[in-house]
Amino acid sequence: MTAGPPLALTMGEPAGVGPEIIARAWSALKDGDGPAFAVVGDAALMRAQGVPVQTLAAPADATGVFGRAVPVLDTPLPVSAQPGQPNPANAGTVADWIEQAVNLAMAGDVGGVVTAPIAKAPLYAAGFRFPGHTEFIAELTADAPFASTRGPVMMLTAKDLRACLVTIHSPLAEVPELVTGERVMRTARVVHEAMQRDFGIARPRLALAALNPHAGESGALGLEEIEVLIPAAAALRGEGIAITDPLPADTLFHDEARAGYDAVLCLYHDQALIPVKTLDFWGGVNATLGLPVVRTSPDHGTGFDIAGKGVARADSLIAAIRLAGEMAAARAAR
Amino acid sequence: MTAGPPLALTMGEPAGVGPEIIARAWSALKDGDGPAFAVVGDAALMRAQGVPVQTLAAPADATGVFGRAVPVLDTPLPVSAQPGQPNPANAGTVADWIEQAVNLAMAGDVGGVVTAPIAKAPLYAAGFRFPGHTEFIAELTADAPFASTRGPVMMLTAKDLRACLVTIHSPLAEVPELVTGERVMRTARVVHEAMQRDFGIARPRLALAALNPHAGESGALGLEEIEVLIPAAAALRGEGIAITDPLPADTLFHDEARAGYDAVLCLYHDQALIPVKTLDFWGGVNATLGLPVVRTSPDHGTGFDIAGKGVARADSLIAAIRLAGEMAAARAAR
Repeated sequence: MTAGPPLALTMGEPAGVGPEIIARAWSALKDGDGPAFAVVGDAALMRAQGVPVQTLAAPADATGVFGRAVPVLDTPLPVSAQPGQPNPANAGTVADWIEQAVNLAMAGDVGGVVTAPIAKAPLYAAGFRFPGHTEFIAELTADAPFASTRGPVMMLTAKDLRACLVTIHSPLAEVPELVTGERVMRTARVVHEAMQRDFGIARPRLALAALNPHAGESGALGLEEIEVLIPAAAALRGEGIAITDPLPADTLFHDEARAGYDAVLCLYHDQALIPVKTLDFWGGVNATLGLPVVRTSPDHGTGFDIAGKGVARADSLIAAIRLAGEMAAARAAR
Repeated sequence: MTAGPPLALTMGEPAGVGPEIIARAWSALKDGDGPAFAVVGDAALMRAQGVPVQTLAAPADATGVFGRAVPVLDTPLPVSAQPGQPNPANAGTVADWIEQAVNLAMAGDVGGVVTAPIAKAPLYAAGFRFPGHTEFIAELTADAPFASTRGPVMMLTAKDLRACLVTIHSPLAEVPELVTGERVMRTARVVHEAMQRDFGIARPRLALAALNPHAGESGALGLEEIEVLIPAAAALRGEGIAITDPLPADTLFHDEARAGYDAVLCLYHDQALIPVKTLDFWGGVNATLGLPVVRTSPDHGTGFDIAGKGVARADSLIAAIRLAGEMAAARAAR
């Protein structure tokens, strides 16, 4: 797992749990049990977490350093970070870290990007204009060459579950009209290609979750399956994408069911997040599919209420680093 | 668990898996590891499952018989049942079995009713006019005395999860308008009283699932939490019912979360059924709360495709029998 270039790990919101869980993830991974990473962030803040730190001249040096210190590509914050107290004066630097990491990935100097959580309020106060990491990274990579269907598609993982979202942060009442055949098909193409490119699965098997209970029960409990989802699935199969007809969502997530597919398309936020967090509340990972760069992140927020207290769990960040390493290795092997 | 009157177990659709899973459940429970039951059904069909059968003159005799034979309150079918081939000529008798069992429960001759699955098509062909067991039993018990808020409310269980539904078999697009404050409050009252009466929990702790992702994120992802759910929860607390404000649905179902409440109110079918079936696909139970009689059923259908092949699993029926026994004991102890 330490072959190939290291990963870039952005420090995220400096007043959140990012710095401490990065320190914890490094301790868990430094002895070779996972990919090496270079932190893109503030070296002094990293040092304040009680771990050895070494600043780097070039990201490639991270691999050699990783066993004895946290490798940092240092861009200091203008204002010292206070746990739980985000400061908009630091927001520009937080955004710079992300941009630096993405540029390194586009240049091939790192294998992929892992992003620690950011807080929207201080970024917005400083003029940041994206809903989150995903859209910002999509914009940063918009002109990079990419010989596949472009996302971004959000994928959440837990254990062996890969749940990919057709709609994400929409009120439930808007979901039925947002679930169009076009959106389902574009999502399925991105997921199909990502399973091949980033997961090394030659013939991906996709499952499609239904919108209505009992998959609409032949129309008695809703028409979207008949009018939208069954035709979309048939058209996708015509393109050579192996996807099921819409299946009752409650039959898709137990152990035997998950063994039957490589990824599932979920139509709305909680349809994916309920099983992800039921199966593994602490270790879920958010991966962005369909971008020129590999990108993952922990599936939690900045944790301002617990930042600096030493109680934040690094499970999700560690899983995100491992997953980015696997995806980078699969891309490199093509 | 064998104290008190036995349970009545209706045979359900005779061409489905009912008879064979009843035989399997009896084998699992006959040695005292669960409550005794009397089958309300066709003794010859029961005998055809390869288990010893004894017909009863009175339900109370079931307890003494149970250790050596399946006790049956015999009402023969007019037409012999063929596995996988439902016959509307038998539908009247299938409905009679349910009515007999409910009458025995109202008379106190049995502690509760467990219903094996029925098929709607043959019942409808024979003039049955209810959407399912739940509504039929509600009608049969409509005039029985009941000193509590009347349901029916559907509750699904899996492991330690009790998920109660505010809406059930509605298209997803209709859910937001169906989730009214009145409906949430009525459901919560039924669940609160059932936790006390049927589960012996003196001070039930209820959780309320939100409709929108992130519980609406202060209105940014939907207004139903602010306009409907938060006011309903506050009003319920004013009545002395301990219920949370609406919580993000993806934070409610992992082990630690479930330990924090006795029952959760879910707003739509898949919000409850996804976690139930993810946690325990084979052992889920459907219980009807807020009726003058205790009633549970397995959380699966008639299984026409596998009926008579000896492969149907009795996990859910066994769990339904155990749960009815516990609920009957709690009612009897008041």
